[in-house]
Amino acid sequence: MSSSPSWEKSMATWEGIQEAHERIAPRIHQTPVLRSATIDALCGAEIFFKCENLQKTGSFKIRGAANAIFSLPEKEAERGIITQSSGNHGAAIACAAAWRRVPAWIVMPKNAPLVKCQAVEAYGGKITFCEPRISARNEAAARVQSETGAVMIDPYDDDRIIAGQATAAKELLEEVGTLDAVLAPVSGGGLLGGTCLSAKQLQPEIRVYGCEPAKADDAYRSLQTGTIQTMDSSDTIADGLRASLAPRTFAILQKHLSAIFLVTEEEIIGAMKLIWGRLKVITEPSSAIALAPLLKPEVVQTISRGGAGSARPRIGVILSGGNVDLRALPF
Amino acid sequence: MSSSPSWEKSMATWEGIQEAHERIAPRIHQTPVLRSATIDALCGAEIFFKCENLQKTGSFKIRGAANAIFSLPEKEAERGIITQSSGNHGAAIACAAAWRRVPAWIVMPKNAPLVKCQAVEAYGGKITFCEPRISARNEAAARVQSETGAVMIDPYDDDRIIAGQATAAKELLEEVGTLDAVLAPVSGGGLLGGTCLSAKQLQPEIRVYGCEPAKADDAYRSLQTGTIQTMDSSDTIADGLRASLAPRTFAILQKHLSAIFLVTEEEIIGAMKLIWGRLKVITEPSSAIALAPLLKPEVVQTISRGGAGSARPRIGVILSGGNVDLRALPF
Repeated sequence: MSSSPSWEKSMATWEGIQEAHERIAPRIHQTPVLRSATIDALCGAEIFFKCENLQKTGSFKIRGAANAIFSLPEKEAERGIITQSSGNHGAAIACAAAWRRVPAWIVMPKNAPLVKCQAVEAYGGKITFCEPRISARNEAAARVQSETGAVMIDPYDDDRIIAGQATAAKELLEEVGTLDAVLAPVSGGGLLGGTCLSAKQLQPEIRVYGCEPAKADDAYRSLQTGTIQTMDSSDTIADGLRASLAPRTFAILQKHLSAIFLVTEEEIIGAMKLIWGRLKVITEPSSAIALAPLLKPEVVQTISRGGAGSARPRIGVILSGGNVDLRALPF
Repeated sequence: MSSSPSWEKSMATWEGIQEAHERIAPRIHQTPVLRSATIDALCGAEIFFKCENLQKTGSFKIRGAANAIFSLPEKEAERGIITQSSGNHGAAIACAAAWRRVPAWIVMPKNAPLVKCQAVEAYGGKITFCEPRISARNEAAARVQSETGAVMIDPYDDDRIIAGQATAAKELLEEVGTLDAVLAPVSGGGLLGGTCLSAKQLQPEIRVYGCEPAKADDAYRSLQTGTIQTMDSSDTIADGLRASLAPRTFAILQKHLSAIFLVTEEEIIGAMKLIWGRLKVITEPSSAIALAPLLKPEVVQTISRGGAGSARPRIGVILSGGNVDLRALPF
């Protein structure tokens, strides 16, 4: 329709998601869906954890990065890839670029966790550090791009990235069947936006919720106010959730998202401890956040009431990453 | 044959293993098989990790415990169950007894990790602590049995237990196809013995290896000398590997095992760190030990040469458990 706002034309399509899945499936893990009877009992729900923390490079980010890099024509790919990232997207770009045998330059904030910097370097990525502010990141990325001539792949504001991240929820729903709701963390909105697109396509009645640190509540405020809010820095323990929404991801969330749950630092750590202790998988704080709201009875009641009224709703939780410094655990 | 030694008559059969699998499959997780490109490259092999650390109760022990307890006639089961365990078998017996709604009494050494004692109690098991010596454990178990009249289920020397533990390797081989070798930890020999029975039944050419702490090398010495060697105590970090072989498990290992690899404490910790960092799953020392030998090139070369001579052998590793105190990590 000619009256569609521009974002609708650029929104990642279901066809794009299916193509992305075919393109990346031979290169990535189909990650397991894990369950815990103890966590189910604590939450009063049946929870299905999609373990992208067990994905190659330790996070879902390889889905979008591999889709974007393997979508490029040879002429473009050979110029190399440039991106900016707080960590997991950088490692994923470095890894997928290595698979395609092209160079990768990664701009990272200088407060990024050491374990994430080491991962980028292990995959052969070349790091440029910058001040830990969005503006400084963008400036540094533009400068490195002009110096290298590499192709910029934005961490979120890119349909190929969103379509790639969407394949995690696609796999989850294809494996476990009907769910009442899916929860995922939100930072730039690539994972949460992609989750919305796959979930609403496969199960139109499903509700999708975002989970965000109260200390970095820019996505929450963006949806409240109707315009993208930014946050130039935050010291939340969820180091992967310090970015802000982009036009494409904001548009998807405005259209499809039911709500964003804000979570305290203590709640993030509590959820992380529970996942480590009960699910026995290593989960970073930015990832454990997606369980945290479900430990509050009123949240599960809200999800129950919104659906067919089942007393024990079926809920998907996307565990997004497992890259954490094992010598500096918060418990 | 009348000339068979008595252990052959009592060895768990393939029929027993198949029945065990049917009995327990609805109650347990079919655990995922995980891979890591980095660990493969480090070892020069394709390694398939069967993640029993992600099993219900946090270890494979629920397989044998559930098989034994659900095999009991109602008249016997209602008397309750008694066993002795350094931790994981106790939690599994307590859990399976709770599923069957009968009481469970668990004799544990007083140096068992707190996290394992808490798990037994969480499943409703009643703990009696004893001195950390095999003799003291057996005495305490006999005393509690005479007081309660409960049915004793030995942690290893029981065909129902061995048949249950055998289902882990059965699942692994049914999922991944032909392997050159499988490695599993050895303590009382229930897991390793069961692994031998399933592996040799499904793939007669496969080699099965045990992994044991050099500080608790009683199974190694048993196979060397041809008689069961015991070790009354050990301070190895692999707290689950302090038991000794029993007549049934010793007979199976004598018949089917290719070798036992002895591993230092430092090698156990190194393997544990690698699994946590790369596979992103929580693995206890007693479980990480099964990767440790593969980090030595000469071991992988030995496995290569023993088979069809493939340069990059396909090796299964059974990660047996994930019950570890997160506040006392050895790295």
